[in-house]
Amino acid sequence: MTNTPVAAYEPPYYAAIFTSVRTEGDNGYAETAERMHTLVQDMPGFLGYESARAPGGGLGITVAYFRDAESIRGWKQHAEHSAAKEQGRTEWYERYTLHIAKVEHSREWVREVGDGSGSGSGSA
Amino acid sequence: MTNTPVAAYEPPYYAAIFTSVRTEGDNGYAETAERMHTLVQDMPGFLGYESARAPGGGLGITVAYFRDAESIRGWKQHAEHSAAKEQGRTEWYERYTLHIAKVEHSREWVREVGDGSGSGSGSA
Repeated sequence: MTNTPVAAYEPPYYAAIFTSVRTEGDNGYAETAERMHTLVQDMPGFLGYESARAPGGGLGITVAYFRDAESIRGWKQHAEHSAAKEQGRTEWYERYTLHIAKVEHSREWVREVGDGSGSGSGSA
Repeated sequence: MTNTPVAAYEPPYYAAIFTSVRTEGDNGYAETAERMHTLVQDMPGFLGYESARAPGGGLGITVAYFRDAESIRGWKQHAEHSAAKEQGRTEWYERYTLHIAKVEHSREWVREVGDGSGSGSGSA
């Protein structure tokens, strides 16, 4: 799990939104998820990764950001990632949806210490 | 919180990815989040909504899906939503990033009862 939102990069870039419901038990999931997180950071065009899962069988959302469509295809076709996806269908997921999307606008905001007014930046 | 991934609609459609870190305490957040969830469902072009937040001060990710850029602008400019965003900067968030993205491909998979093989559908 990450604890900082991925930055608002200069568009265009790509987001892969993976939303899932897990099966019960770990079954090697945590170890593989950690491995995928390490691998994806070495992919050409990788920009960032964020993940959240509600406790108690809730929904999990992972978003990986890439510079362009080619780099997102590279990750899709990565052999070890493909094997993990296959194991995901066999063991880890009850269901999932994947949306591949081209980011057209982005914006970020960070609270400023002391006054609560914060500062924003971005393209939208 | 939702507990089912939003469906893989026929592209193109739009995703608004909102990733945030909360301040401590509720401060009226849960009530307003519930109200926004109700409001957004009545917006023209609204397709679906999914949200997950890791416990213990972790990251929260909310993704709202819309049919087109016009409907996502309508939600951006909704008066009550604008007031909630302002209150978010004053009270609820330490930081956030918003990415507005056009979905080009999508795919969903649901485990089939009994054999674990599942079935997929989608555009990618």
